[in-house]
Amino acid sequence: MGNKVISEAVVKRLPRYYRYLEHLEQEGVMKVSSGKLAQLLGVTASQVRQDFCNFGGFGQHGYGYDVANLKKNLAEILGLNKNYNMIIIGAGNIGRALAGYKNFAGEGFHVCALFDIEVRDKEIGGIPVYSMEKLADYIKDKGCDIAVIATQKGVAADIADRLVALGVKSIWNFAPIDLDLPEDVAVENIAMSESLYVLSYRMKNKNNENNSQ
Amino acid sequence: MGNKVISEAVVKRLPRYYRYLEHLEQEGVMKVSSGKLAQLLGVTASQVRQDFCNFGGFGQHGYGYDVANLKKNLAEILGLNKNYNMIIIGAGNIGRALAGYKNFAGEGFHVCALFDIEVRDKEIGGIPVYSMEKLADYIKDKGCDIAVIATQKGVAADIADRLVALGVKSIWNFAPIDLDLPEDVAVENIAMSESLYVLSYRMKNKNNENNSQ
Repeated sequence: MGNKVISEAVVKRLPRYYRYLEHLEQEGVMKVSSGKLAQLLGVTASQVRQDFCNFGGFGQHGYGYDVANLKKNLAEILGLNKNYNMIIIGAGNIGRALAGYKNFAGEGFHVCALFDIEVRDKEIGGIPVYSMEKLADYIKDKGCDIAVIATQKGVAADIADRLVALGVKSIWNFAPIDLDLPEDVAVENIAMSESLYVLSYRMKNKNNENNSQ
Repeated sequence: MGNKVISEAVVKRLPRYYRYLEHLEQEGVMKVSSGKLAQLLGVTASQVRQDFCNFGGFGQHGYGYDVANLKKNLAEILGLNKNYNMIIIGAGNIGRALAGYKNFAGEGFHVCALFDIEVRDKEIGGIPVYSMEKLADYIKDKGCDIAVIATQKGVAADIADRLVALGVKSIWNFAPIDLDLPEDVAVENIAMSESLYVLSYRMKNKNNENNSQ
C-alpha cells in the first residue's frame, strides 16, 4: 500500500468523505452504504468502492460501512490523527482571517505565529506576530510543520525558497502563483481568483442555457 | 459551441491558462507555444491543444498562440469581460478578508456590501455592512450578480435558500458544506479545510517516501 500511487482525483475526494462521515456521526448514524456516500459526493457507488479499495477496502459488502470505523481509517490516511504546528507568513487580510479561524485548531492544525515584514499588531486573535527577521530563529527553536503563505504574489516565491531552506516540508499557499519546490516538500494551493473565474464561467454558461430554453 | 459540455477538468484549467497568459503579457512575451503552456500547467502539449479545441482552436499550428489574442479569447470564455456586483454574507474573518481584498475589483468583481446578523462596524475597508434584515430590499434595489457565503456552516444552507428565493443566480461558497441549489444557479465552493486535509495527506506520504529511500 505504501508505494501505491493514488490519483489526484481520489486524494481530493478523501476530505469530502471525511466531512460527510463527520456529519453522519454527529447525526448518530452508525452505518452507511457506498450508495449513500456516492449520492452525497455526486459520484457512483462503484467509484466509492473503488476509491476505498486503494486503501484496502474497509467495508463488508452488503452490510455497509461502519461510520466511526471508516472515519477513523480516513483520519489516519489523511494524517488527521496528529497535531501540526502552523505558522502564517503575511499578516494581511488572508493571514488575519486564517489566524482568527478557530476551526483549524480543533482539527489538529495549530496556528502558532504570524510573520510579516511590518509588525503592526503584536498579536492577532491571541496569536503572536513577529517580524520576518525572526523567522529563521523561530523555526530553529520551535519547528514548523506547515507554513502558510498569505503574502502578495510578488514575494511568495522568495518566501517559499526561504522556508524550504529553513527545513519546512509543507506549504499551504494562498498566493496566486505556482511554487517551484523540491520533490520532498508538500504543497497545496488555494487559488481564490481561479475559483471566482470558474464561477463566472459557470454563470455565463447557465445564462446561455437558460436563454436557449 | 454553446451546447457542448466542457468537462470539469478543462473548466478548472481555463483560469490557470488565463493567469499564465496574464503573466506572459506582463513580461512582454507576444507568442507562446502549446508546449510552453503545457510545461507551465504540468500537462501535455496535446492536452493544451485539445483543451483549446473545445472552444474552436485559437492558434496557428507551428506558429504558437498570440498571447494577447489568446488571453482576450479566454477572458471572454470565462466571462471576465464584464463587471459583477458582489455581496458578502457574513462579516466574520473570511468576509472581512474578502472585503479587504483589492484584487477582485481590478478583475471586474466589485464587492458592494456585506451583510451580517450583527452589524459591529458600519463599514469594512470602505464597504458598507448592513443587517441581514436589509438583504431583500438591497437585492431588489441594487441587484446582485454574485453572493458570497462566508457564514458559519450551520446557517449556510438557509442563507443559500434565501438568496435563491431573492433571485440570486450565482453563489461563491466558503462554508464547508455542499449546497443543494436549483439547476439554474451557479455555485463554486472554496473548501479550506479540505485543502488543508489534502496537504496533510501529501505531507504524510512524502514522509513515507523519504523514509523508505
